[in-house]
Amino acid sequence: MTTPTSPLSAALEPLLSALAATAAARDRAGGTAHHERGLLRESGLLTLLVPAAWGGGGASWSQIYEAVRAIARVDSALGHLFGFQHLLLATARLFGTPSQWEPLWKATVAGRWFWGNALNPKDTRVTLREHEGKLVIDGRKSFCSGAVDADRLVVSAIEERTGKLVVGVLPPDRAGLRILGDWDAFGQRQTDSGGVSLESVVIEESEIWRSPGPLGTPFAALRPLIAQMVFVHVFLGLAEGAFAEARRTFEGRPAGSAVDPFALRRGGELWLSVLATRALAAEAAHALDEAWTTGEGLTAAARGRVAVAVAAAKAQATFASLAVTSGFLELTGPRAVARLEGLDRYWRNARVHTLHDPVDIKLRDLGQHALLGQFPEPSFYA
Amino acid sequence: MTTPTSPLSAALEPLLSALAATAAARDRAGGTAHHERGLLRESGLLTLLVPAAWGGGGASWSQIYEAVRAIARVDSALGHLFGFQHLLLATARLFGTPSQWEPLWKATVAGRWFWGNALNPKDTRVTLREHEGKLVIDGRKSFCSGAVDADRLVVSAIEERTGKLVVGVLPPDRAGLRILGDWDAFGQRQTDSGGVSLESVVIEESEIWRSPGPLGTPFAALRPLIAQMVFVHVFLGLAEGAFAEARRTFEGRPAGSAVDPFALRRGGELWLSVLATRALAAEAAHALDEAWTTGEGLTAAARGRVAVAVAAAKAQATFASLAVTSGFLELTGPRAVARLEGLDRYWRNARVHTLHDPVDIKLRDLGQHALLGQFPEPSFYA
Amino acid sequence: MTTPTSPLSAALEPLLSALAATAAARDRAGGTAHHERGLLRESGLLTLLVPAAWGGGGASWSQIYEAVRAIARVDSALGHLFGFQHLLLATARLFGTPSQWEPLWKATVAGRWFWGNALNPKDTRVTLREHEGKLVIDGRKSFCSGAVDADRLVVSAIEERTGKLVVGVLPPDRAGLRILGDWDAFGQRQTDSGGVSLESVVIEESEIWRSPGPLGTPFAALRPLIAQMVFVHVFLGLAEGAFAEARRTFEGRPAGSAVDPFALRRGGELWLSVLATRALAAEAAHALDEAWTTGEGLTAAARGRVAVAVAAAKAQATFASLAVTSGFLELTGPRAVARLEGLDRYWRNARVHTLHDPVDIKLRDLGQHALLGQFPEPSFYA
Amino acid sequence: MTTPTSPLSAALEPLLSALAATAAARDRAGGTAHHERGLLRESGLLTLLVPAAWGGGGASWSQIYEAVRAIARVDSALGHLFGFQHLLLATARLFGTPSQWEPLWKATVAGRWFWGNALNPKDTRVTLREHEGKLVIDGRKSFCSGAVDADRLVVSAIEERTGKLVVGVLPPDRAGLRILGDWDAFGQRQTDSGGVSLESVVIEESEIWRSPGPLGTPFAALRPLIAQMVFVHVFLGLAEGAFAEARRTFEGRPAGSAVDPFALRRGGELWLSVLATRALAAEAAHALDEAWTTGEGLTAAARGRVAVAVAAAKAQATFASLAVTSGFLELTGPRAVARLEGLDRYWRNARVHTLHDPVDIKLRDLGQHALLGQFPEPSFYA
Repeated sequence: MTTPTSPLSAALEPLLSALAATAAARDRAGGTAHHERGLLRESGLLTLLVPAAWGGGGASWSQIYEAVRAIARVDSALGHLFGFQHLLLATARLFGTPSQWEPLWKATVAGRWFWGNALNPKDTRVTLREHEGKLVIDGRKSFCSGAVDADRLVVSAIEERTGKLVVGVLPPDRAGLRILGDWDAFGQRQTDSGGVSLESVVIEESEIWRSPGPLGTPFAALRPLIAQMVFVHVFLGLAEGAFAEARRTFEGRPAGSAVDPFALRRGGELWLSVLATRALAAEAAHALDEAWTTGEGLTAAARGRVAVAVAAAKAQATFASLAVTSGFLELTGPRAVARLEGLDRYWRNARVHTLHDPVDIKLRDLGQHALLGQFPEPSFYA
Repeated sequence: MTTPTSPLSAALEPLLSALAATAAARDRAGGTAHHERGLLRESGLLTLLVPAAWGGGGASWSQIYEAVRAIARVDSALGHLFGFQHLLLATARLFGTPSQWEPLWKATVAGRWFWGNALNPKDTRVTLREHEGKLVIDGRKSFCSGAVDADRLVVSAIEERTGKLVVGVLPPDRAGLRILGDWDAFGQRQTDSGGVSLESVVIEESEIWRSPGPLGTPFAALRPLIAQMVFVHVFLGLAEGAFAEARRTFEGRPAGSAVDPFALRRGGELWLSVLATRALAAEAAHALDEAWTTGEGLTAAARGRVAVAVAAAKAQATFASLAVTSGFLELTGPRAVARLEGLDRYWRNARVHTLHDPVDIKLRDLGQHALLGQFPEPSFYA
Repeated sequence: MTTPTSPLSAALEPLLSALAATAAARDRAGGTAHHERGLLRESGLLTLLVPAAWGGGGASWSQIYEAVRAIARVDSALGHLFGFQHLLLATARLFGTPSQWEPLWKATVAGRWFWGNALNPKDTRVTLREHEGKLVIDGRKSFCSGAVDADRLVVSAIEERTGKLVVGVLPPDRAGLRILGDWDAFGQRQTDSGGVSLESVVIEESEIWRSPGPLGTPFAALRPLIAQMVFVHVFLGLAEGAFAEARRTFEGRPAGSAVDPFALRRGGELWLSVLATRALAAEAAHALDEAWTTGEGLTAAARGRVAVAVAAAKAQATFASLAVTSGFLELTGPRAVARLEGLDRYWRNARVHTLHDPVDIKLRDLGQHALLGQFPEPSFYA
Repeated sequence: MTTPTSPLSAALEPLLSALAATAAARDRAGGTAHHERGLLRESGLLTLLVPAAWGGGGASWSQIYEAVRAIARVDSALGHLFGFQHLLLATARLFGTPSQWEPLWKATVAGRWFWGNALNPKDTRVTLREHEGKLVIDGRKSFCSGAVDADRLVVSAIEERTGKLVVGVLPPDRAGLRILGDWDAFGQRQTDSGGVSLESVVIEESEIWRSPGPLGTPFAALRPLIAQMVFVHVFLGLAEGAFAEARRTFEGRPAGSAVDPFALRRGGELWLSVLATRALAAEAAHALDEAWTTGEGLTAAARGRVAVAVAAAKAQATFASLAVTSGFLELTGPRAVARLEGLDRYWRNARVHTLHDPVDIKLRDLGQHALLGQFPEPSFYA
């Protein structure tokens, strides 16, 4: 079984080796992966989405997701942060005006910025109001992936005057903004997905992305699909990484030794779910590439077709990652259960990450399309 | 939900309408679909594999399988016969010499030949021996799809002298050859997959394909993969055809009426299995196209990679077709159970057809590759 | 593998042999099983529920369901009618007063009555109104199992005055009542589940069961649970009957011949679902026996506990019957697909019968109880 | 949803509360649960199997397993040790003579002995040989559950002279015996399932159980079934314990708040697998009770019937425990992922414990019985 080689492989290889060498230990330690975040900054891969003309990687989403998946195979927490870097860059692009996002993208190249997230739209405790002629944000967000050690934060708030969600950008050292660093979950441990507290944090109007704004056009509404695809590729990477552990067990067996046919059958069953995920993820990434290239002219129907492809990939990836990260342990040898080997982390990571939003809704959306011809209603999850 | 349009659609459309109109009735009747076989002959689609320069369709395998699947959606028995037409043409190409297969392909165009099958390699009761200076075949074959009303038959026999399987071609009116027309199964009823009896049937040496012969080279060993892919696309067509029946139920509902969320979720679950099959089938067809184009220089490893892709598509298609052809009935209205509607035929067809060779072997082959890096041993089923 | 022997075995054995001998042929023929209904009448088994003191069988529900399941193993259509016989007797008992149901039970013994059904509560097109001092029923019912050749019919109607459902009994020769005999489904073909037309059919007040009436008390609300348990045991019988066909294939193999381990594993997988169904069905039947014995004093909570046990058995039986009646064909030899063997009828019967009411609702009810501690709301399906 | 109350509840309740209060913390800590082992010794529950006449609990296996399951709900590591206590007592009873096992049982009561295990029969590195007139054991065992802090150890070795497995008992302080205390797995962390090293350890002939010896009679061959049933009840307890965490989430919701129907459906799906496991486990425990009571006269067929019931319960429990300990997290609120809550430990415990022996073999054994009528070959796993 050969994994398809990637055009980015050369840039990725040393990073992957470094991450793999310490992934189990860092899973035990938790906390912020300062050193590894540094490696990502140095790799230049944080600007894959930025045009080559501006010094970025000029990569397609398909290529970016290939990198997400490759990183997730060895370290799904870092894979997630790496994927969200590009999601947050895309958020500026999709919700803001060119005079907003273009300087941010260029500064990201110049400053090797790592972006973090304080956006969780389910968490409506953060408000934006006018106070003494200034726009002020107050409240507390949870699940702010990558907030620690970030150079810029994407924040959201409910605007008191309109009751609407607004999204914008803040530097992490803005007065009143405090990143709590309190993430201590049983999986995805180094994603720094803890809380952010905002007390009378001033945000400039120019830092708020109002045009077209959150989900303001079909094109802007690609944002949740880009996010879902990060999940798809982290899930896929987890399944592939876990399966690779099983493969290593077999590589070590004495030459010519017989292999239990039931184990081969079980391995095939698990692997089939990986192959199906790969195929659906590739189709969805291709559809997204096209929609991204289309730009502002993207129609609701064209966006809808991407959404359906993404929903299919997401549901399949969810099932595959949960099945493989638990089932591969039936195929590994006795070292499988040793705590220091950390082979349980694949399931822990997959389980925490797949709780993000419920797979039954994805199945419902798929059924709604397949049976009724309706596209998913754009939201922060579909 | 839109089905991807096909370049062959124009040629196919009238045929599909004609088949669909009578499919349920012909399923009840069983027997040979003389009229519909005539429509296929007239459509020109029986020569899709033959180069355009020789008057054929000049189609790729991907295109041929798209046609198989489109036909199978409305009539999986005819879809199977249509697929086997191309398999049998390919058998001549792969097992024989140019001086053997080229005239046969040209005659197929000229004579609008429909090919039939008396090859079932599991059935070893047919022998080839020398008798008074002639090569003579004796015995009986079962499961000879498309043998009735065929213009040419591909036959196999065990050569007494060598104990090896030989494969060749016979006209159906060769003395001693009798097509029994005794197929009466609960599914795939119009595939004419009954018995053939051979009593002292003379075959010329030139009619036997000895070079490279059955599975004689990696390229020749594409034959079983081409066969498996016919199954994949018949299964896929069955799942799609069944699902379309459910969709029709919903099309008829009062505008604006609410739909049970559990039904949508279930529909999505079933549809996901169809989408995964589509994606894996497309990948396998693409791999086969490449291998076919490579020709005699195909390496064992390159052939192996196709075999793995085909095994994955086959396993997935098996699961999807069985799940959807049974499960879609949970989504249809009360007409679902009416015998004359014949909605049970999707499962009956899928069930009979998926019994061809066991899916556990496909999973084992997949596991063997994914865990041990080994390709499936070429055989008439892998 | 031995099937647990039943105390009723002796009475059942000749009946089962007779039904088995013609089941495949009668499945093809469809229509009313007059001869076999006669055998059931003669067997005395139609009065199992009636106390021995009144000349009945004096059986528990567990014993009755054991008989349903034994019959369903060889003929699930007759198994259903046999189960509904007891359901309809129970309906009189549960919805009516002693002065209503006692004479009916005694007449059933005396007259060897076979009861039929025109009750389908989903079908609300039938009304009851006062007309010239008489109570008159008008309308049309579908899915009236066992209506043809019935000695008494249980009917339901919506009372115009109150908008409520009323249930009562009619002789089939009452003026204006017409049994259409139009059932022609792809499964459960001899259940006579067609339509009944009622035109100005007079019903006496004494024939209407108003006290406690439909679901009028927790005890009366056992009725839908008794109905669901008929389904459970028909499903279970179908799964067992199908599995027995696979077992027969293996009985015929040459002594000492090896058996494919994958086939054994698959057989075990299917059989496990049967064993789980048996265990849950037995628990539910035992719970029902206790509730039945409790009588009118049954509390809502005690009824609720039975309902949960029944929901579990029903969901498991649904999954098992669909899985086994399709999957056993992977374990049978080549005769499996012959139309005249009729081995597809197990799935056809299971598929039609499991469409009665959706299994997702059963799962929801189970979850509601397991997570929230709530019992299913009594209805005609739970 | 109420869990059936147990006759042992009174004795168990304080123990369960104590274990539950610290289970998550002790899972993090790993190592030996000295304090909790002390509670078990004090509870008197370690002698449940011993006749009341000798001061024991006089319990049936069904009752013992009910206690195993209750403990496993809150602490599956301790549940396992508790179950193995009784397995090891049973091993003396089944493999030894009355003059061997009776004193051991009485001493267990008198000394509040906790038994440990150095028996792993897959691990054949330990030998027994005669040396200078003494019987001497040498080698190393892995997976010796409960060896640390044990009062007696059951050991096995391959006898050099005969090549056969012998099983006997040793005090933990016998010269040359060293308990390594090196268990550090990602699940079942406080089972002390590490290594034992034996260097020239003298064992008396009277300490070896040769008559009837390991699997020496059908009755003696109940030993592996008793072991498998410990696993069944630990798995079941894990599933029930995990599900109870989900239930607690819902208990905390605002009164009258709506619950997502998809969540209820999913809960029902998971709970159904628990109910099926309960039912099959109860049947198997009952069968074992009968066989245990039968004693030495147990026939191979009667033993075989227990083995089949145990195989079914084991396979079902495996599937249910893996499904529920992963799936319940879809039903819990945001606290689900907090590391200190330790809700991942249910899956970690289930995953490690279900790796003991492969479930495919159980399915094969079931299929072998259901299709061929053969009982599982007695072994240390069936």
